[in-house]
Amino acid sequence: MSDNDIDALIDLMARLPGLGPRSARRAVLHLIRKRALLLTPLADVMQQVAITARECLNCGNVGTTEICDICASEKRATGELCVVEDVSDLWAMERAGVFAGRYHVLGGTLSALDGVGPEDLSIPRLVDRVASEAISEVILALNATVDGQTTAHYIADQLEGQVKLSSLAQGVPVGGELDYLDEGTISAALNARKQL
Amino acid sequence: MSDNDIDALIDLMARLPGLGPRSARRAVLHLIRKRALLLTPLADVMQQVAITARECLNCGNVGTTEICDICASEKRATGELCVVEDVSDLWAMERAGVFAGRYHVLGGTLSALDGVGPEDLSIPRLVDRVASEAISEVILALNATVDGQTTAHYIADQLEGQVKLSSLAQGVPVGGELDYLDEGTISAALNARKQL
Repeated sequence: MSDNDIDALIDLMARLPGLGPRSARRAVLHLIRKRALLLTPLADVMQQVAITARECLNCGNVGTTEICDICASEKRATGELCVVEDVSDLWAMERAGVFAGRYHVLGGTLSALDGVGPEDLSIPRLVDRVASEAISEVILALNATVDGQTTAHYIADQLEGQVKLSSLAQGVPVGGELDYLDEGTISAALNARKQL
Repeated sequence: MSDNDIDALIDLMARLPGLGPRSARRAVLHLIRKRALLLTPLADVMQQVAITARECLNCGNVGTTEICDICASEKRATGELCVVEDVSDLWAMERAGVFAGRYHVLGGTLSALDGVGPEDLSIPRLVDRVASEAISEVILALNATVDGQTTAHYIADQLEGQVKLSSLAQGVPVGGELDYLDEGTISAALNARKQL
């Protein structure tokens, strides 16, 4: 059996999302085999990120500066504010590369079951931002789940009359086949059909 | 979008087996959120393992000492030598906790297609160990794959007449249902049936 440090490494790796005990063991053996190429650089950059990573004070994005690159960029001051549940959703929007405005990360969704109320998310801060920044439109890019849509409705209620509100369109995903789509998506796509 | 250190961390994490770009991003966000509990300890122990991890000079197990705990233990000097393909197989045998002898890690299997010959594995070293150590039995615990079984046959040829040889039994896995087993396994189990 392996040694204490190696066991400790396996235990910690197994706590990452997407890795279990078996894949953690595989990953650790891989790391030890690729010591110079992977293990040492990974340890170094983790050390670095542990020191520097922080949430943007403005939008909640994760970066290494007090105000993130997006919030700091003059080019992104379009007046459009895209509200997302999580930093991973912000990154997904950025990968699509089609939104030129700024973001607001809620940090989750409202959930009566889990006892998550508006004050547990950054909804009060969103209302403040809409009042104090020059926001022309708030785009609700929440996940198309029950909790996501409940949260979107709540935010829409809070901001009604103060700013233009919109949400992402629902419909057939690009490349999607009707046969593989659920009834809800087909129904949403039919209701929102576009005239040619 | 995230910063340079964070991007570098995502890129490195995505090179681990079992993680792709998406799960690497999820893992990194998780790490940043659990900085004190997970990210810092993980960075520290990786740093440590990068320095101390090494292969046992005797058997090829991975540990932090020149000779691994198993090889160094007087209690394990039973004369039984268990031959496995990989360190992960050695660890799997140890988890089962039923083998009290020592191991020999081959470092792979013979493969004509990939150009892996006996000298690329630790087969010559295995022949040496059988000649020089007080080995009473060599147990071939190779995977039940074509390459694993080819390698087992080759080793059996090399060691024939010098030592008692055995291999793991093939049959129905514990908890296994016949309906879900392949024909090869059922056939092996039938051929190796035990009289009650």
